[in-house]
Amino acid sequence: MKKKALEGITILDLTRVLAGPYCSMLLADMGANIIKIERPKTGDDTRVYEPIVNGESAYYMNLNRNKRSMTLDLKNPDGKALFMELVKKSDVVLENYRPGVMERLGLGYEMLKEVNPGIIYGCVSGFGHYGPYSNRPGYDIIAQAMGGLMSTTGWPGGEPTRSGTAFADVMGGISLCVGIEAAYINKLRTGEGQKIDVALVDSVVSALEIITQIYLVSGRVPQRIGNRYEASYPYDSFHCKDASIVIGAGNDKLFGILCDVMQMPELIEDPRFISNPDRIKNNVELKKIMETWLCNYQSEEIVEILLAAGCPAAPIYDIDQVTEDPHIAGAREMFVEVEHPIAGKMRLTGNQIKMSGTPVAFDRPAPLLGQHTKELLQETLGISDGEYQELVTKGVF
Amino acid sequence: MKKKALEGITILDLTRVLAGPYCSMLLADMGANIIKIERPKTGDDTRVYEPIVNGESAYYMNLNRNKRSMTLDLKNPDGKALFMELVKKSDVVLENYRPGVMERLGLGYEMLKEVNPGIIYGCVSGFGHYGPYSNRPGYDIIAQAMGGLMSTTGWPGGEPTRSGTAFADVMGGISLCVGIEAAYINKLRTGEGQKIDVALVDSVVSALEIITQIYLVSGRVPQRIGNRYEASYPYDSFHCKDASIVIGAGNDKLFGILCDVMQMPELIEDPRFISNPDRIKNNVELKKIMETWLCNYQSEEIVEILLAAGCPAAPIYDIDQVTEDPHIAGAREMFVEVEHPIAGKMRLTGNQIKMSGTPVAFDRPAPLLGQHTKELLQETLGISDGEYQELVTKGVF
Repeated sequence: MKKKALEGITILDLTRVLAGPYCSMLLADMGANIIKIERPKTGDDTRVYEPIVNGESAYYMNLNRNKRSMTLDLKNPDGKALFMELVKKSDVVLENYRPGVMERLGLGYEMLKEVNPGIIYGCVSGFGHYGPYSNRPGYDIIAQAMGGLMSTTGWPGGEPTRSGTAFADVMGGISLCVGIEAAYINKLRTGEGQKIDVALVDSVVSALEIITQIYLVSGRVPQRIGNRYEASYPYDSFHCKDASIVIGAGNDKLFGILCDVMQMPELIEDPRFISNPDRIKNNVELKKIMETWLCNYQSEEIVEILLAAGCPAAPIYDIDQVTEDPHIAGAREMFVEVEHPIAGKMRLTGNQIKMSGTPVAFDRPAPLLGQHTKELLQETLGISDGEYQELVTKGVF
Repeated sequence: MKKKALEGITILDLTRVLAGPYCSMLLADMGANIIKIERPKTGDDTRVYEPIVNGESAYYMNLNRNKRSMTLDLKNPDGKALFMELVKKSDVVLENYRPGVMERLGLGYEMLKEVNPGIIYGCVSGFGHYGPYSNRPGYDIIAQAMGGLMSTTGWPGGEPTRSGTAFADVMGGISLCVGIEAAYINKLRTGEGQKIDVALVDSVVSALEIITQIYLVSGRVPQRIGNRYEASYPYDSFHCKDASIVIGAGNDKLFGILCDVMQMPELIEDPRFISNPDRIKNNVELKKIMETWLCNYQSEEIVEILLAAGCPAAPIYDIDQVTEDPHIAGAREMFVEVEHPIAGKMRLTGNQIKMSGTPVAFDRPAPLLGQHTKELLQETLGISDGEYQELVTKGVF
């Protein structure tokens, strides 16, 4: 078995639901030793989220593969003491509680670094750990709304539109992952820990930078413009006989190829379309010309013709088509089969980071609640059977 | 001045436009030594992208702060030899050409590791470096279409919808950043380099995992459902008197708070809304009840009332509101002022990763084309003035 890139890094993972678990999922896939600490009895909220297979949540099983689970009551004084012992043996603590919760538990960064000055403390929350809104509840939809994404997604005259996936949670989680790895590199060289504070709203703002930049330098407020792009045209969706496709021919060379395929070379010299700014300005007319031509073709047929000529084009896949595509599902292994002890054989979403030397692997299905409590305590703290039983009696797990 | 986390890591950055430069921007903000290698005369394509300030592109200036630029003709044999010398002195090479381009230049990973076995080679492309579609041109819109995002963004009965920002480029770039840092951690411990291959399409698939999981385990193909979420309700946008807001009250406790604010405690026990699955099923009726109540309020007023009661809610910001918000722009410093030698004072989008020990900083505005060619060659390879002039004569820069 090949080594993985992050082997030997021990992470105490208090995160729940999506943003935090997405971060620790990426770290787990790359080999970090994730100790997922869950609330006794119920665990991560998503353990009951739909869809459910044989009583197990696919939402949970997908985000928590490659992790081990222990239960621990952080409000119990003995549970808290045990957590502090684990902190001494760990490199990273991750949490995505509302800011202030860890401090009220007596487990804020300032407390943890007292027992382990090298600890890296990573947190992801709606608005971050400082600033006037830091105590507001933060959810993905709130960050999509306040980060400006919804105002620029959708159709002219239509409603502001949420991304079809939890964009803010995913961007927040992966941004925290970038920060944790950078802090670990710094720690390997200096021995020093630190706190990494990521907000969902900030993460959405970062993802929007090209759009926001338009306002920052020109004063124009970007609006909803459907599927076209502010910076180039034609770069949009187009109706064919049976369905829509996308075409991205946003520079002069690609537009020339497109005009040749359309057998309309005169468009290349047409003053309405001669440069990219002209094509952006006259996008409605150009789209009309293109769709008049495209409506003679089936979408699958014309994508092939465009690609063969060197013009970027693609079908708009439904989710089932994504999961069955020979490139995405086949060669790129973006869906992987795992065997879960209760749910049985199932497919999860794979990892997008393809590493030649230390490839990610799916060595463990998601854990049952508290499945590894005893194993992790023995392995990390050398706790004996007797000590474990005593802690059970004290109601720690 | 505080040290930054990635100081001392030298990265040869051949990337252009968005996905690659977003990756190296994150690394540069955290202190990596980015040597941006640009094509002589024209440089990165985005140097002419709108919006333009005093002849300088804000698109370029935003994504390339904290980097230094040298020009280099990689088709010139002396230019190629110089690049190989730089590879020997570097930790990482980044590129986002179409797969095969680097190999045709004689600069593929297999060639580079001959001269520096520890080199980390990071690439981001539309479909990745292997698989049946690897040679297809890949742009953001194509990855949004084929990754399934467009099919699940938008309104019932409406068109598949592109995210208002270049989601696939941003996710691809940040995923590469996660891979590069992990590979560097592995290199610090083993001395070994490797290739990190990220595809835009794979990155979109990873971001969609909760949605895709529905199909993978239940066989139901998720569709466009507007602003609501598959997993909970009420978690949606709602019309008030003047504008729409978002409310995220997706569990029983928060729904209870919402019903109290609405002064409709009877809804808590209403069999249509008693559990989260019931509320998802009867979302149309619940939205109607909520909007009948909300249309008595101005959006700003009711967001305050809801937040005061502990119910997650937010305005839907236009881009100008994002840039002027006291939390986002103020406390969280998500927009920073820099002084560019030609564009003058301007605002850029900040960095979302807030690090307590090694904070990111904005020490340099984006470089002019080739501004640091001589400086970088002197610093990295110890090239003399005479040698530099000779290379100029050979047309290398």
